[in-house]
Amino acid sequence: MKNKLAQLKSILAEVYDLENTAHLLEWDMQTYMPPGGSEARGYQRGTVMKIAHEKFTSPEVGELLQDLAPLVAQLPPDSDETRLVQVTQRRYTKKTRIPAKMVAERAQLTTAALSAWEQARPENNFARFLPHLEKVVDWKRRYAELYAPYEHIYDPLLDEYEPGMKTAQVQAIFAALRPQQVELLRAISERPQADDAFLHITYPEQKQWDFGVEVITRFGYDWKYGRQDRSAHPFTTNMDPSDVRITTRFLPNLLSSALFSTTHEAGHALYEMGIAPELVRTPLADLVSLALHESQSRLWENLVGRSLPFWEHFYPRLQETFPAQLGNVNLNTFYKGINKVEPSLIRVEADEATYNLHIMLRLELEITMVDGSVRLKDLPEAWNARMEEYLGVTPPNNTLGVLQDIHWADGYIGYFSTYALGNLVSVQLWERILSDIPDLSDQIRRGEFSALLGWLREKIHRHGAKFAAQELVQRVTGSGIDPAPYMRYLKGKYSQIYGL
Amino acid sequence: MKNKLAQLKSILAEVYDLENTAHLLEWDMQTYMPPGGSEARGYQRGTVMKIAHEKFTSPEVGELLQDLAPLVAQLPPDSDETRLVQVTQRRYTKKTRIPAKMVAERAQLTTAALSAWEQARPENNFARFLPHLEKVVDWKRRYAELYAPYEHIYDPLLDEYEPGMKTAQVQAIFAALRPQQVELLRAISERPQADDAFLHITYPEQKQWDFGVEVITRFGYDWKYGRQDRSAHPFTTNMDPSDVRITTRFLPNLLSSALFSTTHEAGHALYEMGIAPELVRTPLADLVSLALHESQSRLWENLVGRSLPFWEHFYPRLQETFPAQLGNVNLNTFYKGINKVEPSLIRVEADEATYNLHIMLRLELEITMVDGSVRLKDLPEAWNARMEEYLGVTPPNNTLGVLQDIHWADGYIGYFSTYALGNLVSVQLWERILSDIPDLSDQIRRGEFSALLGWLREKIHRHGAKFAAQELVQRVTGSGIDPAPYMRYLKGKYSQIYGL
Repeated sequence: MKNKLAQLKSILAEVYDLENTAHLLEWDMQTYMPPGGSEARGYQRGTVMKIAHEKFTSPEVGELLQDLAPLVAQLPPDSDETRLVQVTQRRYTKKTRIPAKMVAERAQLTTAALSAWEQARPENNFARFLPHLEKVVDWKRRYAELYAPYEHIYDPLLDEYEPGMKTAQVQAIFAALRPQQVELLRAISERPQADDAFLHITYPEQKQWDFGVEVITRFGYDWKYGRQDRSAHPFTTNMDPSDVRITTRFLPNLLSSALFSTTHEAGHALYEMGIAPELVRTPLADLVSLALHESQSRLWENLVGRSLPFWEHFYPRLQETFPAQLGNVNLNTFYKGINKVEPSLIRVEADEATYNLHIMLRLELEITMVDGSVRLKDLPEAWNARMEEYLGVTPPNNTLGVLQDIHWADGYIGYFSTYALGNLVSVQLWERILSDIPDLSDQIRRGEFSALLGWLREKIHRHGAKFAAQELVQRVTGSGIDPAPYMRYLKGKYSQIYGL
Repeated sequence: MKNKLAQLKSILAEVYDLENTAHLLEWDMQTYMPPGGSEARGYQRGTVMKIAHEKFTSPEVGELLQDLAPLVAQLPPDSDETRLVQVTQRRYTKKTRIPAKMVAERAQLTTAALSAWEQARPENNFARFLPHLEKVVDWKRRYAELYAPYEHIYDPLLDEYEPGMKTAQVQAIFAALRPQQVELLRAISERPQADDAFLHITYPEQKQWDFGVEVITRFGYDWKYGRQDRSAHPFTTNMDPSDVRITTRFLPNLLSSALFSTTHEAGHALYEMGIAPELVRTPLADLVSLALHESQSRLWENLVGRSLPFWEHFYPRLQETFPAQLGNVNLNTFYKGINKVEPSLIRVEADEATYNLHIMLRLELEITMVDGSVRLKDLPEAWNARMEEYLGVTPPNNTLGVLQDIHWADGYIGYFSTYALGNLVSVQLWERILSDIPDLSDQIRRGEFSALLGWLREKIHRHGAKFAAQELVQRVTGSGIDPAPYMRYLKGKYSQIYGL
């Protein structure tokens, strides 16, 4: 058995190397690659990913898994070996279901759809995007059929990004959440608005960079194993837990953009840097789910980075960095400004109180797109109607409405929910952390984050993909994914800020 | 046949993608990779290179080559198809000769040897490096035996870097060259020395960067398909002709270092950028030989970049850039300063008149290392004796002597000659260019390089690896590799500078 496990691990190690090599190809594409290099890069990515797929789905892997199943059944259920075989088996079953031809077809469809979307969005031209969206949705339907029988046709799509999660579960969670979020938003809207004009003045880029670096270094981001670069859209990439890189971008007239994107990406990166060394070069050294990943970025971005104790420590440093801009803005004003609630058209700019509503809208639309209950050509109207219903705003055009996100063009139908689920999980973990580290607020007020990071490493990070997301949340918090802590947090925070 | 050719090409395209992916892994390693990421990077490179090797040496490739041989024999001998099959067959025969086990063994040996060398060099501790060098040399001997019978045991080593070249040929070329170079050096040493003190003052880095960029942009380096970064040692990397990157480094107190390394690397890059698009994703879109590659870098670095017409154009700009440093240095003094001849201990700092002597020394030592006529422990003495004989200087220690180069630690025994051969070829080409473009000096004096680059593209670059190096030199210059033009060039140039 040791021998067979070693054989399996040696194949999986090569797959791991290839997948991480693809990550570098992608990182470079978005940071330093000269513009003329994109066609060759497309070939390189395609070849590396194809070989990784072929190696992982080879009959040899199937046979080794079959041989190993009865043997690992005798090991403790939580041993690395048992979990490795189980996780690999799950992925193997899923990946071998999809014909290579459909994988290639998806790459072609989405390349064309992305290109059409890039033109359609600034032109406010949904009609240009529509035929491509139809092909993408058709592909996703056929993809779902590969995994029939299912409870809901949307289940296999969700499962691609959030393994084990069912449509009905997400719908139940969102159904509980929505009326409370809408109600909170209504209450806030009746109070005087916070002032955030001071965020929208000129902040020199290099000083923004330096301050962000100072903050995340204090979080525990280890530059021996990471780096930060500029890119059009911030992202985190990992080549291994020993090489996890983040990117950021600067808006010269909006301080909060780079500031919170840096803490957000650092949250993702701290997760990946914390995976246990013994899981490296196996499928267990991978992210377990997008929701859990997002819980980590949101925890550092919001629960730490938009909290009062955090700014009690860092605001004097920020004022020192930008004396002309913030010298006359006191802590309380600053804190309220960065936590201003305002229904807006664009998801990526949404505050904590409205963000999930953007996600709920997308989930509902995606379900109707896939189950056929909305005609795709009617999507702009469906979008706008829900925006009005949930957020009380109506997009003046499709550029600021249905065309705003890249996800559908890239075939990422099933992805959005993970953002909202991540928000919920972040607060579930936070409540548990506060009960385990009762003086955490004081620590943060002193700029100390090592106990927090230690807790996250121990409970979450080190496990990588060893436990399924919902299992891990259950183990750590004693509960499944639950909207109640998130609502408690929002209500508490905004009652204080807006005097509700 | 079309079908079989397409099959072959599709395998070779994947090998091409993988090899170029490995180039990115290496480029990143030397530019941006965080220091902690090196172990994972080692695995990634190993896996990508192993798979490329397996794919290229697969029995399927062998069978396709066999099937295609009689068929391409009916095509014109210079057609891309014929050459593709021939070049692939040559590499296939060579690569399938070496057992995978020996490939892995080399990687292990040289990883350890590099690490020992990195410690031994600053410590002046040849004894620390010796046992590793012994293993490397032993491996190289066993490697040579794989290709027996040979005329000379060093032939297979040379062939790895300079396909088709024989030890006896290089020895004959160097035998003709050495007495003339030694004699020239003696004559120069009897003349008053040139003043280059003005190169050794402080030159701000950013201005050095900007000036270098201005020069190579004028050469025709196309930033759409390339970029420049900083690294510890300058190098050129290509991911495809559409993505060819250079690096440079700056010595704050030596203007000439970055200046000439930038023009040197740009020369390499222009070659790779000029490979014909129809050869891309085949083994023909590759460098044909290191000597030919070096001929291109040396041509732009020396024949253009250290020439008087070049500085007649650029020196006013350089003075404008560094008025405090160069305002009082006239063109003639500057030109003599950058062409100062001085026997020195370190190869990479050697001038045009002494460089080849460093190479000859290395070739002779390598031959004796491999044929066993010198005991490796006696290498330091052998090195120092030849330094005294050829250059009239004796290294005070091994750091500045036998331990100076990384090549042996990395298993690159057989490589050095290509540097000197590149110098010779650069001048052979130059003589031909001058006869085809009689007013080239005037063009350069006006800062115009398009006719020169056009000539190189047409005669050399576009062919990639389609023709063997010596065949291409013969086609273009009407002669084999020949030291006479190089000596004519050196004598003409230095007679003028030193008034011989």
